[in-house]
Amino acid sequence: MKQKAFVVLWALSVGLISGCQQLDNNSPQNATTPTIEANATINRQLAKQALNSTLAYDIVESLTVEVGPRLAGTEQDLIAVDWAVKKLTHLGFDKVYKEPVQVPVWLRGYASASITAPYPQPLVITALGGSVATPKEGITAPIIRFDDLQSLIEANAADVKGKIVFIDHKTERHRTAKGYVMTVGGRSKGAVEAAKKGAVAVVIRSIGTDHDRMAHTGMMRYQNDVVKIPAAAMSNPDADLINAMLKRQQPITLSLNLSSQNRGVATSYNVIAEVTGSTKPEEVVLISAHLDSWDEGTGAIDDGAGVAIVAAAGKLIQDLPQKPARTIRVVLYAAEELGLVGGKAYAKAHAQEMAKHYIATESDFGAGRIYQLDVKVNPEVVDKVLQEHALLSEVGVAPGNNNAYGGPDVSMLPKLGVPVASLRQDGTDYFDYHHTPNDTLDKIDPEALAQNVAVYAQFAYTMAQSTIDLRPLVQPKANQ
Amino acid sequence: MKQKAFVVLWALSVGLISGCQQLDNNSPQNATTPTIEANATINRQLAKQALNSTLAYDIVESLTVEVGPRLAGTEQDLIAVDWAVKKLTHLGFDKVYKEPVQVPVWLRGYASASITAPYPQPLVITALGGSVATPKEGITAPIIRFDDLQSLIEANAADVKGKIVFIDHKTERHRTAKGYVMTVGGRSKGAVEAAKKGAVAVVIRSIGTDHDRMAHTGMMRYQNDVVKIPAAAMSNPDADLINAMLKRQQPITLSLNLSSQNRGVATSYNVIAEVTGSTKPEEVVLISAHLDSWDEGTGAIDDGAGVAIVAAAGKLIQDLPQKPARTIRVVLYAAEELGLVGGKAYAKAHAQEMAKHYIATESDFGAGRIYQLDVKVNPEVVDKVLQEHALLSEVGVAPGNNNAYGGPDVSMLPKLGVPVASLRQDGTDYFDYHHTPNDTLDKIDPEALAQNVAVYAQFAYTMAQSTIDLRPLVQPKANQ
Repeated sequence: MKQKAFVVLWALSVGLISGCQQLDNNSPQNATTPTIEANATINRQLAKQALNSTLAYDIVESLTVEVGPRLAGTEQDLIAVDWAVKKLTHLGFDKVYKEPVQVPVWLRGYASASITAPYPQPLVITALGGSVATPKEGITAPIIRFDDLQSLIEANAADVKGKIVFIDHKTERHRTAKGYVMTVGGRSKGAVEAAKKGAVAVVIRSIGTDHDRMAHTGMMRYQNDVVKIPAAAMSNPDADLINAMLKRQQPITLSLNLSSQNRGVATSYNVIAEVTGSTKPEEVVLISAHLDSWDEGTGAIDDGAGVAIVAAAGKLIQDLPQKPARTIRVVLYAAEELGLVGGKAYAKAHAQEMAKHYIATESDFGAGRIYQLDVKVNPEVVDKVLQEHALLSEVGVAPGNNNAYGGPDVSMLPKLGVPVASLRQDGTDYFDYHHTPNDTLDKIDPEALAQNVAVYAQFAYTMAQSTIDLRPLVQPKANQ
Repeated sequence: MKQKAFVVLWALSVGLISGCQQLDNNSPQNATTPTIEANATINRQLAKQALNSTLAYDIVESLTVEVGPRLAGTEQDLIAVDWAVKKLTHLGFDKVYKEPVQVPVWLRGYASASITAPYPQPLVITALGGSVATPKEGITAPIIRFDDLQSLIEANAADVKGKIVFIDHKTERHRTAKGYVMTVGGRSKGAVEAAKKGAVAVVIRSIGTDHDRMAHTGMMRYQNDVVKIPAAAMSNPDADLINAMLKRQQPITLSLNLSSQNRGVATSYNVIAEVTGSTKPEEVVLISAHLDSWDEGTGAIDDGAGVAIVAAAGKLIQDLPQKPARTIRVVLYAAEELGLVGGKAYAKAHAQEMAKHYIATESDFGAGRIYQLDVKVNPEVVDKVLQEHALLSEVGVAPGNNNAYGGPDVSMLPKLGVPVASLRQDGTDYFDYHHTPNDTLDKIDPEALAQNVAVYAQFAYTMAQSTIDLRPLVQPKANQ
């Protein structure tokens, strides 16, 4: 309790000083009672500035060119942290700081696989994040194919024992992550379910919508009481190849060799920048992204785009002559890819502050245009909140529903009482590139990126000025 | 001369016997005077059968699945030769045989590269075919960038000496190979021109129109009097990355490591199948493709598609109740990728027979639809020849010009007096996949492939029946 009181007092004092400076220097207007018209004017101005600016593109170019791949827990990850601190400082935020996060260290090593019978051919594969290595000489075994994770779960252990499980679940293309959600269980839980039945390894059809001969990596998990078997993904064309072989002749024997290693933990950082609120500086509107990336691309769409969007949106608000009431906190999370590690660490480190988090959101779905605003707030105020964002329709965003997820690193906040929002991006192409070497700068459309900045800036400003009480998220049940 | 007479007699005897069998078994009609109407009926029937058949797709699936990558001079190449002999035999051609070809042996080994300064990042590269290795510890040197091969040729040696030359020539997208033709000189001649000025290695922007993080391989050449330096290609996104770095900070230092090896020669084979002509069996209509492929994809569009198209077209004619007058010779060349080796060997082995080659063509541009028929024949009969193929308009093919190239492996035939044709395919997407791991079966549209078979079958049948004299290719100059 002492600590909480201290934190609040600290935030208040810093915030008030900052707010006063703004009032003295820039605006004679009373910042506590902005009119609806004034907010609308500022909103339109933010959108216009965002749409005419290349700032976000410049930021993601800088990150992908000057840092590039930045797997959490590696040296490149710390280079990214330094880059972020310098970039946010250079942008002139009121505050820039970093908070340590303990992250797992996983090293990819090499990965190779080939069909050894009936038709010897090399395969294009990648180790799944967290996978153990094979023995040095590799694993050679017949494969057994399953349509999906559920079919594996329902299989007889006798059929699986000693084999390499092949989960062949195709990811459907949708504007949302619906296709990914249907197949990703095979990636995260395949090794555990296969090992339970005595399999010696698991290989999955990549969780991706493309036809490129690139495998999609991504995190997998083990369970303490189940033997750890190696896990890898193959490209979609390779999975097609195996199916064509299965039509011809069985069994198919596969040889797999991974040298990946789990190497304990390392320190990384959540990097945070703030535009201090003018009148309610202790209250936080949190806009976020994750700084880490997978190691095979340059982390442009996942999540350099998000980093650029929230940094550029924050910068636009930072540069306003009159800051909004609440603090805008830009959080660049550590190690999202390795299990929302930075998000969880933030929630823990800021547990005492949760009541002061007005609303939170994360941009982590590429750089496609935002088409809808969803929220998760007190059901009684949903319409009012969405109405408050009516100007977003001018940049192509429709009002959505009250089922927002918020984004991976803020997904744990609603159960701590924090309202969240999802600024929903068009992800039709996202899973073509996600977690592959193809996640590079050229996959970002600068105009779509600028639209994202416009929406984030308007959303953050509107929320930082709002007088609506967004809580509680769930209505107490009526007595019966 | 003796040999020639023997070959002609042999071809005649076999052809006549075959023709007689046909007459006895299948057709009371006089095969030497087919009517225009009868030809048109058979042409339309061939097209209909082709468009309703999956034979070509089945063939290219078989080749890519049961053989896969088949770099000339490797064990896989011989597996491909066996596959081809068996497949063509199974299809029931009148004759199937193979002719030995000495091919260079080049082994890819591993290839890696990275920027070491100012912003360390790994690059996605591939060794160019024929390249020597780097020293075991690799080569690390500053890069010097050139817009194209010509700029390198015009550069001062003092600026190039000791550096890694980076040729950054973007390949334009066209329906034809126009973009490729403009840039491929950097790939084939870059190492020689760079070495002449003292460069230690050459890396090029991939000769490809895609934005995938895949490098395009392909053949390069050395010159005996110029030092051999290693040569590699990087993906388009990697070339973009280097350009973005060059905007920021110079010099850029690159580290390159290749273990490729030139290992002498090996025996491969041109694989040949024939539909014996009914009345002029010694005269040959040659339709061809190349059997070898690069080693990183499965050789689906380059040139499994061509193999499937000409084999399926030949099979349709083989199955006609009445064979056409001339022999249809289906040639699957060896080692096209390593320098038209099979094509040159064929021209040499069949030198005495060139006068009996009525016309030749090769399918080696993927599986896009054919939109135009070009020929290279006696200029006085061009219109007549194109008119004879008027029915091709019913499957989307327009009459073209008299500047046909014919295809890589038949490109040396016109100077030996042999007429050629180009059945021009839509190659808009071809250089997205060509010579990359992405050259896989899924890149082939079965319907477009079937249209190719229809066109090849009609073309071959019409030419095998034609009474037009296509020679000489160039008119003798009039006396002045």
